[in-house]
Amino acid sequence: MKPIKVGLLGFGTVGTGVVRIVEGHQEDLQRQTGAPIEVAKVLVRDLEKQRNLRISSDLVTANPWEVIRNPEIDVVVEVMGGIEPTKGYILEALEQGKHVVTANKDLMALHGPEILAKAAEKGCDVFYEASVAGGIPIIRTLIEGFSSDRITKIMGIVNGTTNYILSKMSQEGADYAEVLAEAQKLGYAESDPTSDVEGLDAARKMTILATLGFHSKVALSDVSVKGISNVSKEDILYGKKLGYEVKLLGIAERKDDSISVSVQPTMVKMSHPLATVNGVFNAVYVYGEAVGETMFYGPGAGELPTATSVVADLVRVGKNMGLGVAGRSGLMAYKEKKLKSDEEIASKFYILLHVADKAGVLHKITEVFSDQDVSLESVFQQPNPAIPQAEIIIITHNAIQASMNKVLKQFETLDVIHEIKSVYRVEG
Amino acid sequence: MKPIKVGLLGFGTVGTGVVRIVEGHQEDLQRQTGAPIEVAKVLVRDLEKQRNLRISSDLVTANPWEVIRNPEIDVVVEVMGGIEPTKGYILEALEQGKHVVTANKDLMALHGPEILAKAAEKGCDVFYEASVAGGIPIIRTLIEGFSSDRITKIMGIVNGTTNYILSKMSQEGADYAEVLAEAQKLGYAESDPTSDVEGLDAARKMTILATLGFHSKVALSDVSVKGISNVSKEDILYGKKLGYEVKLLGIAERKDDSISVSVQPTMVKMSHPLATVNGVFNAVYVYGEAVGETMFYGPGAGELPTATSVVADLVRVGKNMGLGVAGRSGLMAYKEKKLKSDEEIASKFYILLHVADKAGVLHKITEVFSDQDVSLESVFQQPNPAIPQAEIIIITHNAIQASMNKVLKQFETLDVIHEIKSVYRVEG
Repeated sequence: MKPIKVGLLGFGTVGTGVVRIVEGHQEDLQRQTGAPIEVAKVLVRDLEKQRNLRISSDLVTANPWEVIRNPEIDVVVEVMGGIEPTKGYILEALEQGKHVVTANKDLMALHGPEILAKAAEKGCDVFYEASVAGGIPIIRTLIEGFSSDRITKIMGIVNGTTNYILSKMSQEGADYAEVLAEAQKLGYAESDPTSDVEGLDAARKMTILATLGFHSKVALSDVSVKGISNVSKEDILYGKKLGYEVKLLGIAERKDDSISVSVQPTMVKMSHPLATVNGVFNAVYVYGEAVGETMFYGPGAGELPTATSVVADLVRVGKNMGLGVAGRSGLMAYKEKKLKSDEEIASKFYILLHVADKAGVLHKITEVFSDQDVSLESVFQQPNPAIPQAEIIIITHNAIQASMNKVLKQFETLDVIHEIKSVYRVEG
Repeated sequence: MKPIKVGLLGFGTVGTGVVRIVEGHQEDLQRQTGAPIEVAKVLVRDLEKQRNLRISSDLVTANPWEVIRNPEIDVVVEVMGGIEPTKGYILEALEQGKHVVTANKDLMALHGPEILAKAAEKGCDVFYEASVAGGIPIIRTLIEGFSSDRITKIMGIVNGTTNYILSKMSQEGADYAEVLAEAQKLGYAESDPTSDVEGLDAARKMTILATLGFHSKVALSDVSVKGISNVSKEDILYGKKLGYEVKLLGIAERKDDSISVSVQPTMVKMSHPLATVNGVFNAVYVYGEAVGETMFYGPGAGELPTATSVVADLVRVGKNMGLGVAGRSGLMAYKEKKLKSDEEIASKFYILLHVADKAGVLHKITEVFSDQDVSLESVFQQPNPAIPQAEIIIITHNAIQASMNKVLKQFETLDVIHEIKSVYRVEG
């Protein structure tokens, strides 16, 4: 049987994992593809570098075209990351008629439609299971498992670094800065953690999930993003007292074909399955009109979990090649994109205010809510000797985002409010 | 475009859901299959019966052959349940060259290999996503999502009735009999609940999952089964004190290609993701060598969740028909089955004993463990004025099943032990 020849772009953590799995599980893989899978060429940055995994020196090259334009190669597996030159390499590989498997969330979030269109034009497969939530097969679940349903909500813990930080803050009552420093020391956070902690990484993944779930080309710029760098240990403490855990959630919602996508720290009710997802684990909660509530949980990153998804995609390409249907199973987003305005977005909110500790303050505050027709589920007021002022913690009923914006604007003009400490969405 | 014509065997809860989804989501379905899906014939038991969903009277028939041997029909969807005459209908449908989608766990657990072999012979697709865990796409996750990995453990809460009962017992501190009666009144348990509460339903589902996960033809008779009818509120109470929830778990394990499959009440550590799966929800935890820990959570039954899985299978058949590859994607179990002996099965155990309240008792008991080389993680002894005797609660370290059997046998000969109240496996 003619082997399926794979060219690897990149030989870092995930690339090494791919080679390990392809070699270690060869017999089981071949049962499924009907042909052996063979790594035929590997693009590396530095030919001289010492590596954990030894591969034959004929296989490595520092010249990308020896992979991309290699007539022997059937499938290009891209695990080098980044936007350029990676995008150019992938487009050229497709141009050359090669199927592509990629783990690149940045690229798929920003240029997914262009890459998928090129693949369709050239009759090639492009699969990217590993780009979201590492080892969790969430992309094929959205495309195939729920092919019969209408998905109306996707909520994801899709960034392991921030989930690790928030879990630690919750478990240990520790400060954000303290836990971040520890995470950096352990290698769970990068030395420049901006992309993770400011929610950008999660936003890219939500772009991909929302596009697939809603059949609509969601762009990264459609996602409203807020990170966790301002989450305080008070927020987590008060949340717990009220029965909530603070999580960085990506939330994609659809109603009557209008959609909204956001990433923000969110108070998640303890009884909700997302509330108990801790540490570097990821989870994606999917609500379908017919199926109801489902959740998919697993490791969000790591050499072997991510490589599992890459090689599962490779098996799929191999099967399609064997059946002669590669490049024919892609489904393009076919629904016109209609974004919800702030008038159409609604949720519960948690608000923490520092206020003057004197008579009539709560009355003035509740008047503002009342004016904007926002009703309140619970209100707590307590003195805080540390400030020293009073604190007011409010959880609203479901409220229109636009009304909440007006409430917050009016709060800024109220002199009894010294500071709007936190405003979070509430779910579950 | 020529429509995909579907014949329905059965028009109960799930059948009605299938028609609702096919009609309600027609446009989205057609985007994926490339052709409309049309329900062309429906086998019912009683032509005169009043139904919630009206369908044209030309579509219904009481004659199964008008569906199975109908030359117009491409796909037979079996949602009537039972073993006979259902099995004969499905084999005849395949004989006639029709693809089959079924939600029938009993049939697939008992006769899956025969049905899949017939399908392979006739070049037909047989899909059965709805047979396990209703709305959770766990079958395609095992087959495709983890195609690259070697799965070593599957643990499932795959029976909603028993999970409802155990959750209620845990939340309300109520007795088994009391909660069962309530569940029967609410329609969550049948008037004869044997198949659910004695673990038989879960065993059938575990047979299917183990066969797929381990590529080995696991038979129902390979599954050791124990139900929940002897779980007491004391077990649940003591479990909680030690940090465990009692769950009916199906557990399939593989080591060096030797496998074991069982269903039993299990003490699940509170921090394990399965511990917080409550009510009628199902969840399947999958451990793969490369991917590590994953879990898939969702509704285990119900009209629309189950129908979602049936229609997703229908979409898959439709796509395969469009691509001309229907009947070519089946993967037969290819590994020889090797069952673990009790010498090869190991786990932690929880044991509750009623003992004489006098000196030297604990010493005699620990001697038995020591003789069999079973070491203990924790031991609690307390007087129980209600019995009135003492109670001893033991959690072992990992112990060989065969050694535990010997311990229990020796316990029966010890006159200081009045009763071995409970012995449960411990996980997490």
